[in-house]
Amino acid sequence: MKKTNRVCQVLGTTFPIVQAGMVWCSGWELASAVSNAGGLGVLGAGSMYPEALRTHIEKVKETAPGLPFAVNVPLLYPAVEEHMKSIVDLNVPVVITSAGNPKAWTAHLKEHGIRVMHVVSSVKFGLKAEQAGVDAVIAEGFEAGGHNGREETTTMCLVPAVADACKVPVIAAGGLHDGRSVVAAMVLGAEGVQLGSRFVATPESSAHQAFKEAVLSAEEGSTSLELKEVTPVRLLDNPFAQRVVAAQQAGASQDELRALLGRGRAKRGMFEGDMTEGELEIGQVSSMLRDLEPAGDIVERLVKECMALAGPDWATRWGL
Amino acid sequence: MKKTNRVCQVLGTTFPIVQAGMVWCSGWELASAVSNAGGLGVLGAGSMYPEALRTHIEKVKETAPGLPFAVNVPLLYPAVEEHMKSIVDLNVPVVITSAGNPKAWTAHLKEHGIRVMHVVSSVKFGLKAEQAGVDAVIAEGFEAGGHNGREETTTMCLVPAVADACKVPVIAAGGLHDGRSVVAAMVLGAEGVQLGSRFVATPESSAHQAFKEAVLSAEEGSTSLELKEVTPVRLLDNPFAQRVVAAQQAGASQDELRALLGRGRAKRGMFEGDMTEGELEIGQVSSMLRDLEPAGDIVERLVKECMALAGPDWATRWGL
Repeated sequence: MKKTNRVCQVLGTTFPIVQAGMVWCSGWELASAVSNAGGLGVLGAGSMYPEALRTHIEKVKETAPGLPFAVNVPLLYPAVEEHMKSIVDLNVPVVITSAGNPKAWTAHLKEHGIRVMHVVSSVKFGLKAEQAGVDAVIAEGFEAGGHNGREETTTMCLVPAVADACKVPVIAAGGLHDGRSVVAAMVLGAEGVQLGSRFVATPESSAHQAFKEAVLSAEEGSTSLELKEVTPVRLLDNPFAQRVVAAQQAGASQDELRALLGRGRAKRGMFEGDMTEGELEIGQVSSMLRDLEPAGDIVERLVKECMALAGPDWATRWGL
Repeated sequence: MKKTNRVCQVLGTTFPIVQAGMVWCSGWELASAVSNAGGLGVLGAGSMYPEALRTHIEKVKETAPGLPFAVNVPLLYPAVEEHMKSIVDLNVPVVITSAGNPKAWTAHLKEHGIRVMHVVSSVKFGLKAEQAGVDAVIAEGFEAGGHNGREETTTMCLVPAVADACKVPVIAAGGLHDGRSVVAAMVLGAEGVQLGSRFVATPESSAHQAFKEAVLSAEEGSTSLELKEVTPVRLLDNPFAQRVVAAQQAGASQDELRALLGRGRAKRGMFEGDMTEGELEIGQVSSMLRDLEPAGDIVERLVKECMALAGPDWATRWGL
């Protein structure tokens, strides 16, 4: 059977497996490992200064020569214009936009031959992204780590709804870590998958070792969606998250919550390893992760598990 | 291929499809229709006085003669002893317990030859139920309607975790409404499925017509998990739910929230049709429901859709 998977066609990858572009966790080493394994490696530009992003792009091109990769750009990021300039100048093949209006950059990027995907948490934004001309949408459920939608729609409910509404291919995200969850996402109507938490717990991720260990120690109920009145974000339980919860329960205002959050906490936690005062973003599925696993092995294992679970016909249909 | 599905074996049903026992929505007409279609019809005893439950049990036995059915008993219900006596006296074949300690009644019921399942929202409680001797656990995710777990674990994350931990079969619940979601649940490790919201929107459900219409008009984001400080419950947006949200944001105490909830609101909303002051419990998946569908047709359609999607080999393996 010939591969007809549209996500592979859009991305130019061997497999429709995308590594999420995550702040402080996904630099060139992780992206390069995933792209070399046949998936889409993604740089998380939301935690990079423009110069750092250029360096990371150059390193991916050097270590994964000729292979597709992407940059994730949160559109609320102050340096978005400089990031987009680097992306065009350095011929990045794919851009994933999030946290903003997909109309803002899609046409510009596509004029330069760049494939564009937008992260959505609802059908409404899925249709908006499609209208803006994206090549695919990433439908990310409530269980995903980091910033998240206000509707709290889970992957099980979101993916079929977005797949029914949109003509462009849908990539499922949120709660995925093994062959079972990848097959489930495909059955729900996705044509590709994006995994974040699983790729944080890899030797190649730039997360601090203490954060990786905390992720691997997570239990059920260890993460929760907080700061809903400001910007909803799924956090790993730690003393900082507990202070956020207490403030919310005491009826703190948006300004008070913003002041509590302050600046630089995500870096402090995930990159510098401050497990007390840092903001730790991770998905619910962290409770099922027990070991660091090389990023390339994850891609290979997912393909094998899907093949064993669903059989070669399905696997081929899914581009695996 | 011979059917080896363990849920069918435990329940004695043709299909491993369970209709959730829901307060105010699931009386004998719904349970009977589902059991007659080859699934497990369930009476929701949480909204019935002991005499009413006896009447409903007798009506199911009369209209679905010789077929398996169940009673769902929330263990916090004040009349639980009388309910359990009726269940034993009237030879109910299956009991589903929820909202309480599975140790309380499992041994007693099993001594009388009754199969017992317990609803859980975490691995921890799944193992507890298994230790108590239940025949199966129902793993219900965050997206489900009504009362829900504090960990907020979604179906995508919960089902594989419980399936990995428990030896007894797992029935998935939360976010299921069509063949895609049923197949996804099976792939995740479930051996059966339970659907609630889909069965509320049937001619046979005892929900008030106004509530059924509200369910069919639900959009994404129309439900949310509220009253987390008291007992987490997924509510449909209405003026009462908005007052709950406002009280929570203002930092209301548990006592204040309990006073706001008061008594009889679920009946007022779901059974009597007060869409303003009533408490309306429904799942996220309501946003994908557009038409009333006879309960028997739902069972038949699910089996057909699964068969078409996954093929006869898988369907047989899944007891379909």
